[in-house]
Amino acid sequence: MDISKLIIHTKLDTASPYYLQIAALIKSKIVDGSLEAGEKLPAERELALLFEVSRTTAINAYRHLEKDGYVSIKNGSGTYVSDRYSFESSTNTEIPWPQLLKPYIQSSMASLMSELMVSNVLEDKISLDAGMPDPDYYPVDIFSKLHRDYSAELDPRDFGHIPIHGYEPLRHTITQMLASEGIRCHADEVVILSGSQQGLYLTARVLIEPGDYVVIQAPTYLGAIQVFQSLGARVLSLPQREDFPLEILEDYLARYRPKLLYCIPTFRNPDGTVMNTGERKKLIQLAARYRLAILEDDPYSNYYYEDTPPASLKSLDDYGGVVYLSTFSKILMPGLRLGYMVAHPSLINRIILEKQYVDLHSNNISQWLLDLFIKDGYLANHLIKMRGIYRNRRNVMVDALNLGLKSKLSFQIPQGGFYVWCKINENISPKKLLQEALKMGVSFVPGEAFYAAAGEEYEFRLCFSRHNEKIILEGISRLEKAIGKLRKGQFSTPKKEMRPII
Amino acid sequence: MDISKLIIHTKLDTASPYYLQIAALIKSKIVDGSLEAGEKLPAERELALLFEVSRTTAINAYRHLEKDGYVSIKNGSGTYVSDRYSFESSTNTEIPWPQLLKPYIQSSMASLMSELMVSNVLEDKISLDAGMPDPDYYPVDIFSKLHRDYSAELDPRDFGHIPIHGYEPLRHTITQMLASEGIRCHADEVVILSGSQQGLYLTARVLIEPGDYVVIQAPTYLGAIQVFQSLGARVLSLPQREDFPLEILEDYLARYRPKLLYCIPTFRNPDGTVMNTGERKKLIQLAARYRLAILEDDPYSNYYYEDTPPASLKSLDDYGGVVYLSTFSKILMPGLRLGYMVAHPSLINRIILEKQYVDLHSNNISQWLLDLFIKDGYLANHLIKMRGIYRNRRNVMVDALNLGLKSKLSFQIPQGGFYVWCKINENISPKKLLQEALKMGVSFVPGEAFYAAAGEEYEFRLCFSRHNEKIILEGISRLEKAIGKLRKGQFSTPKKEMRPII
Repeated sequence: MDISKLIIHTKLDTASPYYLQIAALIKSKIVDGSLEAGEKLPAERELALLFEVSRTTAINAYRHLEKDGYVSIKNGSGTYVSDRYSFESSTNTEIPWPQLLKPYIQSSMASLMSELMVSNVLEDKISLDAGMPDPDYYPVDIFSKLHRDYSAELDPRDFGHIPIHGYEPLRHTITQMLASEGIRCHADEVVILSGSQQGLYLTARVLIEPGDYVVIQAPTYLGAIQVFQSLGARVLSLPQREDFPLEILEDYLARYRPKLLYCIPTFRNPDGTVMNTGERKKLIQLAARYRLAILEDDPYSNYYYEDTPPASLKSLDDYGGVVYLSTFSKILMPGLRLGYMVAHPSLINRIILEKQYVDLHSNNISQWLLDLFIKDGYLANHLIKMRGIYRNRRNVMVDALNLGLKSKLSFQIPQGGFYVWCKINENISPKKLLQEALKMGVSFVPGEAFYAAAGEEYEFRLCFSRHNEKIILEGISRLEKAIGKLRKGQFSTPKKEMRPII
Repeated sequence: MDISKLIIHTKLDTASPYYLQIAALIKSKIVDGSLEAGEKLPAERELALLFEVSRTTAINAYRHLEKDGYVSIKNGSGTYVSDRYSFESSTNTEIPWPQLLKPYIQSSMASLMSELMVSNVLEDKISLDAGMPDPDYYPVDIFSKLHRDYSAELDPRDFGHIPIHGYEPLRHTITQMLASEGIRCHADEVVILSGSQQGLYLTARVLIEPGDYVVIQAPTYLGAIQVFQSLGARVLSLPQREDFPLEILEDYLARYRPKLLYCIPTFRNPDGTVMNTGERKKLIQLAARYRLAILEDDPYSNYYYEDTPPASLKSLDDYGGVVYLSTFSKILMPGLRLGYMVAHPSLINRIILEKQYVDLHSNNISQWLLDLFIKDGYLANHLIKMRGIYRNRRNVMVDALNLGLKSKLSFQIPQGGFYVWCKINENISPKKLLQEALKMGVSFVPGEAFYAAAGEEYEFRLCFSRHNEKIILEGISRLEKAIGKLRKGQFSTPKKEMRPII
């Protein structure tokens, strides 16, 4: 290629010797392949003219490149690009990564969550699966506006390293927000997380050793089950019931001495249930008696569509054992990657040590913008608006299900959150149904994704937050067709028989 | 308090029943303490007038609050705030967190790094400790501008969940950037990380089981040593030498079969050394023979002040065992919390599973802005500018050290990176010196922070990137005074004697 074209817009600066700058430019073209091995470079005189430098400078540039092995200078012939990156390896082996990796605890649902997260990218499909807010209502414009309005007031140091706990103004803002919800805490008891998923991970990391027991309510958030299992925990499930099964929890506590209970007391993912205040108080008393830590995951309590939900476990926590976890992914947008936890200082101090290893601290730009967003009152307004929107979508989905699928499905009307949890009244496997539904262009999550052990067979989760009313109606209509197709076909579920595998 | 003042600017909306909105407002004032337990609330008729609603609505609001236990309605007397959050616990215990946490592997330098990160917040101190870019040159204005200029083109879905690998346009941009540095890879071999610290953590998480061996070059980055040790690895140190001690590495490989070598081949933190191309090639051959994985940490190679450094290990990697790690924290600003890794697909697939547990994916806003920053050519310009600035600062620091401390310190002139690694020629302990230096208002990092085992005693690290020339000069002058003070005093280092501790 013609090197003069490469350098047409190149200006040499005075910060370093010209010959080094010229050499660096030519080197970069060799390395990126614009100049190929064996190619002849301009004569020194030409090079000097091209860059408007002395001939000595041009000679020095080539000599420098020759020293590093990028070109070879043949006397009387010229300067040629050499093949520097080729070298003889005596081994020709490829590293056997699978044999180096440590054993992985594979769950049958291991990659389901990540597939779901990506699956909503497809244009033509109606996603009643992933539990996320509607992108049409992400307040991206307001974030851009805040970035613009406040950039003059920026202290550049806020974009350096900040304390592992997080951006201090945001931590204070969160304590004020929490005070209005009955949780009184000091900013030092708050850690900003890179999403509440990170709080699950860090809490498990500092508490759980392989073989330790963790109690969950079944069904529950898949990502939590996966984290506990990946760290070697043995997971005990509380059964699905109308009330909270305190006496079964006590059986577990007495028998297995689990360290941790994971629960979503308010509008639980996936079944939308709410623990009542009496149960909350009794749970805390039981936990205190057995020195049980409680991880309270609370992503949905701001999205209530009827009464305000009962006070959080943390606000009732008089023994310091409740770790409160929440997120801005559900109430604003997942891409912020911001959540937070509130816990006893003894635990927080240890969480901080662990978070330092994982990412030093969470993203500064998001934290700065989010703090402005809350302080300027946008969050409060956003919540009021979105409650109205999601309430309506819930109503539309519930009505459509009642209209077209009443005999085939049972479900409770959720009082908050994002989900309708459906039980199929017939012998139709949710996985078979999903295969059929995907053909029709609608998706949901089969129930088994929310269990640590084998769970109920005929359940699935629908999410009503992601799409508008029209699309929800179309989605439910496609679902109806998928169910109808399975019933019309010669489809019969074989009776479950356990046979030895030999 | 007078409730009418509380509601003076309150507007009821039509999204939910009025009585619920009124109840929610009063509840929020009870919960945040504006209305105290026992306080009398307005009569129903007054409440109706205040909110311009019917008397029935006012009654319903109070009844609703009573049902949830926030108020009590006393017939003929009125409505009073009740003390809802007080309840009798039968236990009165506090949870014993220290007994619940799993054992922690404490290193003597455990919290040093986090202290250093926060210490640069103090106004009056000259920080020659933390290895970070100068905040005065963080391109925050350009980021604000990019946010403004491109916000119209935003696809809101980019602020939802994205693939765990990271924002796809950024991954492509990075592959192009890497191609110009001789690393040819596919976007699927790139993972965007929440800082390169996360790459250290994830790589160690998927490879290291307690008791496994990891080799490091001593001295090296503290954060890496801490991660390996926290996961139970046994750390083997290659000694500090002019050349790369390949034969000692082979001894380790033959004897201990370590899984992983961690190294910073170019402008190593803290001592600034560079592995030459011959050593790099031989290292890869040796690694291939022993199936050793190499974690190449490369945060500094863009900050060269003389010749361009040798090609990276990854660009020479013909056996697929090199994991390449880099970051935008050092070349742009730490608050972006963005780094990336490049590795063989078998490893990347496993890293992805682990990253999902840790934070699902990295921050979208940072990724989106960074991609624009690189594509619009700002990064290339920034690097050229900063190389000039940091080269000058290095020169100023080196000259000042030569002028005032030549007899007391030895050091090599670093060809790139952020640090001057000093050896004290006298019996002065760096920790004692640090105490004295902090009194004078200047800080540095004692050498032992960079060793896994007991290292050289008389070393410390100075960083020249953080402050301008004037402050560097003042910092070195304060350091001189601190050293002078220690020497003038009746200070004598006791000879080291190992005595049994009984």
